[in-house]
Amino acid sequence: MSKQAIGVVGLAVMGRNLALNIESRGHAVSVYNRSRAKTDELIAEFPDRKLVPAFTLEEFVDSLEKPRRILMMVKAGEPTDATIASLKPLLDQGDILIDGGNTPFTDTIRRNQELAKAGLHFIGTGVSGGEEGALKGPSIMPGGPRDAYDLVAPILTEIAAKAPDGEPCVAYMGPDGAGHFVKMVHNGIEYGDMQLIAESYAVLKQVVGLSNEELGKVYTEWNQGELDSYLIEITSRIFGKKDDETGKDLVDVILDRAAQKGTGKWTSQNALDLGAPLPLITEAVFARVLSSLKTQRVAASKVLEGPQGKPLEGAKEAFIESVRRALYFSKVISYAQGFAQLRAASEEYKWDLDYGTIAKIFRAGCIIRARFLQKITDAYSKDKALANLLLDPYFRDIAKNYQAALREVVVAAVNAGVPVPAFASAIAYFDAYRSERLPANLVQAQRDFFGAHTFERIDKPGSFHAQWS
Amino acid sequence: MSKQAIGVVGLAVMGRNLALNIESRGHAVSVYNRSRAKTDELIAEFPDRKLVPAFTLEEFVDSLEKPRRILMMVKAGEPTDATIASLKPLLDQGDILIDGGNTPFTDTIRRNQELAKAGLHFIGTGVSGGEEGALKGPSIMPGGPRDAYDLVAPILTEIAAKAPDGEPCVAYMGPDGAGHFVKMVHNGIEYGDMQLIAESYAVLKQVVGLSNEELGKVYTEWNQGELDSYLIEITSRIFGKKDDETGKDLVDVILDRAAQKGTGKWTSQNALDLGAPLPLITEAVFARVLSSLKTQRVAASKVLEGPQGKPLEGAKEAFIESVRRALYFSKVISYAQGFAQLRAASEEYKWDLDYGTIAKIFRAGCIIRARFLQKITDAYSKDKALANLLLDPYFRDIAKNYQAALREVVVAAVNAGVPVPAFASAIAYFDAYRSERLPANLVQAQRDFFGAHTFERIDKPGSFHAQWS
Repeated sequence: MSKQAIGVVGLAVMGRNLALNIESRGHAVSVYNRSRAKTDELIAEFPDRKLVPAFTLEEFVDSLEKPRRILMMVKAGEPTDATIASLKPLLDQGDILIDGGNTPFTDTIRRNQELAKAGLHFIGTGVSGGEEGALKGPSIMPGGPRDAYDLVAPILTEIAAKAPDGEPCVAYMGPDGAGHFVKMVHNGIEYGDMQLIAESYAVLKQVVGLSNEELGKVYTEWNQGELDSYLIEITSRIFGKKDDETGKDLVDVILDRAAQKGTGKWTSQNALDLGAPLPLITEAVFARVLSSLKTQRVAASKVLEGPQGKPLEGAKEAFIESVRRALYFSKVISYAQGFAQLRAASEEYKWDLDYGTIAKIFRAGCIIRARFLQKITDAYSKDKALANLLLDPYFRDIAKNYQAALREVVVAAVNAGVPVPAFASAIAYFDAYRSERLPANLVQAQRDFFGAHTFERIDKPGSFHAQWS
Repeated sequence: MSKQAIGVVGLAVMGRNLALNIESRGHAVSVYNRSRAKTDELIAEFPDRKLVPAFTLEEFVDSLEKPRRILMMVKAGEPTDATIASLKPLLDQGDILIDGGNTPFTDTIRRNQELAKAGLHFIGTGVSGGEEGALKGPSIMPGGPRDAYDLVAPILTEIAAKAPDGEPCVAYMGPDGAGHFVKMVHNGIEYGDMQLIAESYAVLKQVVGLSNEELGKVYTEWNQGELDSYLIEITSRIFGKKDDETGKDLVDVILDRAAQKGTGKWTSQNALDLGAPLPLITEAVFARVLSSLKTQRVAASKVLEGPQGKPLEGAKEAFIESVRRALYFSKVISYAQGFAQLRAASEEYKWDLDYGTIAKIFRAGCIIRARFLQKITDAYSKDKALANLLLDPYFRDIAKNYQAALREVVVAAVNAGVPVPAFASAIAYFDAYRSERLPANLVQAQRDFFGAHTFERIDKPGSFHAQWS
């Protein structure tokens, strides 16, 4: 009996779609699920595909070529540890376990260490693109031992999304937790992108007064230019969707409580640990949380008044263009923060991340795919040591030409009482980052005053303490 | 030989000052330090005080009345665990260990559980006020078993700071980690207060053009009114301080890189875990981090241009009053967020925190002591179940009367290129909190579009998924 080159454990929607994706590239795939029902369903649904079912882990492991390649698509956390524990005694040295789940990178680092001791390879990989991406081509972010990656690279390359220039959206990210870390930051960036689009929507609706039909047209148009991206595309389509039940525009029927699954939160918490400023994405995470306090907001709306709505000054078309520029520049600032976090992580965890390649594999398959990612790749190609994307000539020009629009939109929103936490955070970060002098000297004076925490001086090195009283 | 009612382990500055404080209230105090030198120094420096040195832990434990009361003032983390492990075999059931260090509340919860099993009481207490507070009267925030607290309450009450109305600044916070949690949020609030003051300084200096002398006068005047607080007071004095070496104003000689010890970071990370929106304090934490990137900022300042400085429109005095109002209203918003986090924590960890009492014990001894805290106590006296401070009539009036000033200052700063992340975050939070409808419906539509994450509807309960394509 011939053996398969790869097997998939865990046949929920992501696992089964990845198995079908792999099979569609001409590979027979062993498949196993803890409860037999899912396996039976899959085989029944696709009787003609080269999916080889196994009903015990022993049978599953035995059906694989050595070194075995096992892609685990099980729930992050305890279920992943349980799956590893069940597989471990059945495996041989040099076998490769791949965790494609949404795993915190610290767990991946730990599992790498534990499995390396047993002579097993462990690859933690981000997989982005949702169900459809899994089936047709996701963006794949693998991390772990380099030589183990090389043994799975051919299959991952085949199943990955292809960028517009044909390049596959997969690359080796770095050792141990690097892959899951990059996926985490990808998701944080996704939170930022979505919040920025939501704020542009709020401003266009509440300040400019656009209808849903007009909003659909605006985002469709924006998607033709430098904002060209998956999220802008689906936004343009959302405004045209009717509710089947009421016939109303569906967007107006959807409750304004944003949910989350935690990866944005992890990104912010890690940025705080690393000391990497990530205010925009963090505002986006808190904006979701605040939106979920719907009952409180409704009560507050009845007692906390805002400013009187003033009609928009100046031309509508010109202001819409300002919102577009504000959105694009804020997006640049958000990615500058996210990529600075990747840099801080690369140094802290010794990963030697390649930022240009990371931007490259985001170009297709994943939720944040966008034309503008090429600009990030270009920036790092020119200068691998770039400290912050805002310092690259292309992005400097965006800053120069678009900052007035971002200021204009923040000012209009603040005056109109429309909350724009991410836009406002973007301009604050930009202005702080380009400040030779910040008022942090006062903070240091206060800390030395009340706690003798000492301060540095501008004119010589060392720590100093003043007698304040 | 008579035995002491209390002993202090750890004689670094906080421990020795607390020992001296306790002794000054008429109690003999056993003192112990792991290295003998610190004990010898203390006794040599204060030969006439009733400090009873011990040079082994056995001797120390044996010198205490039962149930023993031991205040540990050692470094948080491993040293605290090591001290507990050394003491544990020497103690009897019912003895009380008090950790007065800067301990993460999760460690305190764990130690409570571990020591309860051994029949020992563990009290984790926040102690705020720095070295001077420890000596003369700190604000004290103890958490742990209620009956154990009652056994130490008399001494803690004697050594605590006294509020203007004579009430001691100590109260039982709640079970296990409640005390250290309240201290953590206190520190987070302190980060917010300091950043807001720093932003008011930046605006007054860069937009209004005030000199240090004028700044000193402004803060002195502000300290007479509703902003009356320790931090405004020391700020007013900082601007009058000369550098001994150069004769320049010291504030201008201090390097603008703000340092931190981590409690602000913990507060933000916990708020993210709890799902309690804490954007202002988090912006303050990130502002410190960003200030520390001085080299990058200096480089960026040379290539990233801002807006042309425009002269201040309107009267200078009126704008200064707007900055005062912006500062006070932003401070209200920051405390609204911090106290909402306390509420979320109280529910999550089952602590039954008393928010009015917490504000009360902040009124003296600690860094954030301020006249305005009484308003918070008043608000919770009127309505213990208040969901958010902004809903209380007094704070609603502040919002009504001061929001225009906050908007004016944010607009002026954004137009002038002066970074005001905390001010801007404050108005964004206010506008979001009072929004019946936020653009989060679009976020939910996007999530359902790309990930089938479902959404809620405004017209009926349940989870729904649309066929978007």
